[in-house]
Amino acid sequence: MKKVGIIMGSDSDLPIIQKCTDMLDSLEISYTVHVFSAHRTPEEAADFTKSAKNNGYGVIIAAAGMAAHLAGAVAANTTLPVIGIPCKSSVLDGMDALLSTVQMPTGIPVATVAINGGGNAALLAAQILAISDDDLAERLVKMREENKKAVLAKDAKINAQFNKQ
Amino acid sequence: MKKVGIIMGSDSDLPIIQKCTDMLDSLEISYTVHVFSAHRTPEEAADFTKSAKNNGYGVIIAAAGMAAHLAGAVAANTTLPVIGIPCKSSVLDGMDALLSTVQMPTGIPVATVAINGGGNAALLAAQILAISDDDLAERLVKMREENKKAVLAKDAKINAQFNKQ
Amino acid sequence: MKKVGIIMGSDSDLPIIQKCTDMLDSLEISYTVHVFSAHRTPEEAADFTKSAKNNGYGVIIAAAGMAAHLAGAVAANTTLPVIGIPCKSSVLDGMDALLSTVQMPTGIPVATVAINGGGNAALLAAQILAISDDDLAERLVKMREENKKAVLAKDAKINAQFNKQ
Amino acid sequence: MKKVGIIMGSDSDLPIIQKCTDMLDSLEISYTVHVFSAHRTPEEAADFTKSAKNNGYGVIIAAAGMAAHLAGAVAANTTLPVIGIPCKSSVLDGMDALLSTVQMPTGIPVATVAINGGGNAALLAAQILAISDDDLAERLVKMREENKKAVLAKDAKINAQFNKQ
Amino acid sequence: MKKVGIIMGSDSDLPIIQKCTDMLDSLEISYTVHVFSAHRTPEEAADFTKSAKNNGYGVIIAAAGMAAHLAGAVAANTTLPVIGIPCKSSVLDGMDALLSTVQMPTGIPVATVAINGGGNAALLAAQILAISDDDLAERLVKMREENKKAVLAKDAKINAQFNKQ
Amino acid sequence: MKKVGIIMGSDSDLPIIQKCTDMLDSLEISYTVHVFSAHRTPEEAADFTKSAKNNGYGVIIAAAGMAAHLAGAVAANTTLPVIGIPCKSSVLDGMDALLSTVQMPTGIPVATVAINGGGNAALLAAQILAISDDDLAERLVKMREENKKAVLAKDAKINAQFNKQ
Amino acid sequence: MKKVGIIMGSDSDLPIIQKCTDMLDSLEISYTVHVFSAHRTPEEAADFTKSAKNNGYGVIIAAAGMAAHLAGAVAANTTLPVIGIPCKSSVLDGMDALLSTVQMPTGIPVATVAINGGGNAALLAAQILAISDDDLAERLVKMREENKKAVLAKDAKINAQFNKQ
Amino acid sequence: MKKVGIIMGSDSDLPIIQKCTDMLDSLEISYTVHVFSAHRTPEEAADFTKSAKNNGYGVIIAAAGMAAHLAGAVAANTTLPVIGIPCKSSVLDGMDALLSTVQMPTGIPVATVAINGGGNAALLAAQILAISDDDLAERLVKMREENKKAVLAKDAKINAQFNKQ
Repeated sequence: MKKVGIIMGSDSDLPIIQKCTDMLDSLEISYTVHVFSAHRTPEEAADFTKSAKNNGYGVIIAAAGMAAHLAGAVAANTTLPVIGIPCKSSVLDGMDALLSTVQMPTGIPVATVAINGGGNAALLAAQILAISDDDLAERLVKMREENKKAVLAKDAKINAQFNKQ
Repeated sequence: MKKVGIIMGSDSDLPIIQKCTDMLDSLEISYTVHVFSAHRTPEEAADFTKSAKNNGYGVIIAAAGMAAHLAGAVAANTTLPVIGIPCKSSVLDGMDALLSTVQMPTGIPVATVAINGGGNAALLAAQILAISDDDLAERLVKMREENKKAVLAKDAKINAQFNKQ
Repeated sequence: MKKVGIIMGSDSDLPIIQKCTDMLDSLEISYTVHVFSAHRTPEEAADFTKSAKNNGYGVIIAAAGMAAHLAGAVAANTTLPVIGIPCKSSVLDGMDALLSTVQMPTGIPVATVAINGGGNAALLAAQILAISDDDLAERLVKMREENKKAVLAKDAKINAQFNKQ
Repeated sequence: MKKVGIIMGSDSDLPIIQKCTDMLDSLEISYTVHVFSAHRTPEEAADFTKSAKNNGYGVIIAAAGMAAHLAGAVAANTTLPVIGIPCKSSVLDGMDALLSTVQMPTGIPVATVAINGGGNAALLAAQILAISDDDLAERLVKMREENKKAVLAKDAKINAQFNKQ
Repeated sequence: MKKVGIIMGSDSDLPIIQKCTDMLDSLEISYTVHVFSAHRTPEEAADFTKSAKNNGYGVIIAAAGMAAHLAGAVAANTTLPVIGIPCKSSVLDGMDALLSTVQMPTGIPVATVAINGGGNAALLAAQILAISDDDLAERLVKMREENKKAVLAKDAKINAQFNKQ
Repeated sequence: MKKVGIIMGSDSDLPIIQKCTDMLDSLEISYTVHVFSAHRTPEEAADFTKSAKNNGYGVIIAAAGMAAHLAGAVAANTTLPVIGIPCKSSVLDGMDALLSTVQMPTGIPVATVAINGGGNAALLAAQILAISDDDLAERLVKMREENKKAVLAKDAKINAQFNKQ
Repeated sequence: MKKVGIIMGSDSDLPIIQKCTDMLDSLEISYTVHVFSAHRTPEEAADFTKSAKNNGYGVIIAAAGMAAHLAGAVAANTTLPVIGIPCKSSVLDGMDALLSTVQMPTGIPVATVAINGGGNAALLAAQILAISDDDLAERLVKMREENKKAVLAKDAKINAQFNKQ
Repeated sequence: MKKVGIIMGSDSDLPIIQKCTDMLDSLEISYTVHVFSAHRTPEEAADFTKSAKNNGYGVIIAAAGMAAHLAGAVAANTTLPVIGIPCKSSVLDGMDALLSTVQMPTGIPVATVAINGGGNAALLAAQILAISDDDLAERLVKMREENKKAVLAKDAKINAQFNKQ
């Protein structure tokens, strides 16, 4: 199976990345994690990205805050799908990172997920890889069923407690 | 090769979808286009989506404006990757559609592109399908090279015209 | 009297729902509470909603955060009035939920109240049911009078304490 | 059947109100239309509102732009459900009217619809009145079915024209 | 000298009002403080406001949060100048109150100060009353001089500590 | 009677200022109009402002767009009340000018009116001057009555045309 | 004298760049103009930037819209000062470009000017070069004086036309 | 070498200024720090600024919050480059200060950095001074290399810890 390459712009984004790796672990997907900065180590980021396809990666996830250029910079160097996670920093509630990540010009798309959406970035990577991996596709279906059961259990509990008919 | 299923929430979004189909045509990717409303024809949308994988689709693109629920509603019914295009309507400059599309809860990701980003949605779909399709991957690399040449040509023209040293 | 059906997208919204049930309790209105997710348990949400009218419900209240599709999804499956409560989540101060709830396309309205406005959602439900229930209408008038007295009491206290003429 | 009382803050909002009256006409619902200003004719607005219930009104719709106080001011004077339409004016794309209409304090709810959402305000009023009017409820169901057919017809047309498999 | 009438929409705004009364105390200006709600006690608010001029008030200050209609409602009932203080509530950082207060339609102005700007509302009231009160005008000039001295003292202290030439 | 000093930051704001002078003309209030820039002619602006009180001005109105510093800069040089008009420029719909005008620090208030609110700035100036000018106060009351009549006439016309009972 | 290197992300930004070159022409400053895309020709952009200092450039100006990464990408490759011009595109009024340009992480600053601020970008470049170029500094002072005279002339004209004392 | 003149609008901005002075200390650049208010001590600010060039300053940094006029007011009094730091205050997350600082009218540019971006303001000042100071330019290159090494070290650490291939 192809690997997922995870890149974060700063190690302060680690808690968001851990939601990402936890999800990939649950789905038994291989991955590596790197700290690359679009601005401070642009060449290392480019080197990794340009060789990603040949090194067995199928999808790249990039997480960054503020003027979050990382996902776009990565996307410029590969035709692999790139998933962007906008990270909330100390001001503007993540709106700066969201717009910097999603508003890419035609030619270089970034598949953007919710602000701080580490778990969904991993799930989206899994859904992409599952197109040509039936086992993974099954694990995704199973996870959805478990999520559904969890919601139904909460529903049963709340419904028992709060009704007044 | 797997097909791309394109869904728009209203036929007023057709100009954005045509940027999408033009791009898929250039890349020789099969597709179908539907008008399904998350709210007015939810069952038709669900039927199409639930059977999409078995019907040979690999990726689904959903475009909608205002409280743009379409991409999320589609994503809830499939584990195929779903790409969301937030469409600008007559107020709020597309911010409502962007937030309604991208801010999905954990469990159901939507790969969101820029507001009105029909071309990039198609490109992202192509990049996803190209993971397991080397011919398509090559066509993507070739398109990037052509885009690059187009920028370089513009650079040469502007540079000749506007320098004053 | 008809019941109020309360649905929350996640049990983390419970504090907001309790403002809702407290208000309904004060007004002696029957209700049930469910946890349904527009994306994780869409069929359960649809089943409940489609049969709501026949099961004695008069109004449905739906609370959700982020890309808050729940109220709209519910509204698509019933012609009962649906009240939406946009819930503030950890980013964007509830603006994402507000726009996702209120900016519904023509054909499927959602009666939207303030961000986190659990109490007002219940009051609005009561006002709707009171159109054909004179006893409830009287209880609403009485509650307004009590609210008014409470404000007047605060006015008297503050006015005594802070004037300097 | 109970009537719908429509109030607009300025006659410049007439195009939005006409979407409202067209919808009420289709659904055979009685209504009156007034121009009342929360600030320039507050007493006339209050007189109309306080006597609305006794005069046979079941729901009030209020449309206003900018610092749109009209719906809230009306709601303060009646326990009938009040529907607010935030109207876009020449600046800020209607965001000022949306926040001024929807962010009501606990005790006085306003059922807010989308910016410029005249049609949906009327539909919501109809859904409210239909709780105790089975004929109207049936007309609403029929309208939904027609809307659905219209979407399906558009789907058929677009689907025939744009597929490339 | 004419008095300042201070009105707050809720006693939870008291900390902001105290910045207001502290400033008026420093400037030896008479005032009264009331809790009136635009929606829960509209008649008391109107009664106070309509008789304010005859009761010796020269300026009215109104503070409210969320869909802050109070200042506008007060302004509709008097030709005295009305100063609005938008108060930050638990969501949206006061932007809702700011737009609801400042975006008044032509005919009924509200002199809006910064979000939570209790001190400046009092100062503005003082500047208004000082047009025809030379003693107060002098006290205002003196206060400005003292403010200036305070800034200069801070400048001297910081400048001594942080220079590196 | 004291005069109103009107300052605009750029002669492109003239249409907004004309709403201002039209209103002052209707109310028979004296005024002068200047083009001063907070950044390009700061000294002229300061000279005018510092001597404004002695030259018979009672209120100053300042209109500016973008990073609208003019009203604040004027307010720093006088203890006369200063009214700020935020002007919409070609981007951001006037939000930049609104925040730059209204969010003044404690000590230097600016009485801010709506974006492009030239008419209301003049009315507010009139209300301020009317505190000590009973004739003007009467003209203001009369203008309100005429405005009220105009709204009532529109109400009668619309009400006759659009009711369906 | 050192040259100014102007880079635009797309030739659609040319009208903004021409405000830039017009200003540099007035100030007799040498420059070159290039079209480089942060995403489509990242290597050409990097090559130009890395050698800019040795090729006689003193300042670089970069203009881009949407998720405007260009200025940041350029800044990552040089220690010359980089000035960013956020360009308004068809949605969001330039807010996306502003946040993507200005919210740079510590270590790689971008000197950001107003949305579409081509003229000011050139002026800022000139002010930077003038630190070590007394002739240019004098031309800047002279330009300010001429700007001041232009404002004073407008003031005289408007003041003559609009006063009513 | 020329000095950097740092001005803050209030001593509450000191933590942001200390990031600034720390950076200048690391780069061995001389500086002075002042507390000047655009509104409370405008003349002291103007005096300092007008004589800054003659007193050996090469760049001025100005930090302010809310309606942050300081940088613009300083820029109006000098042709030295002026760097603006928008400071986050208790409401609006710094958006008010950002727009008030960056949206300057043509003629008076302010080189704006990120909200609370004290470190980057100092770096930008250094990059400006380094145009004509080769030693400083080398120190800047060296600092970048150290920053790069720090990122690479973090990358090595994280990469070792989180990969699962």
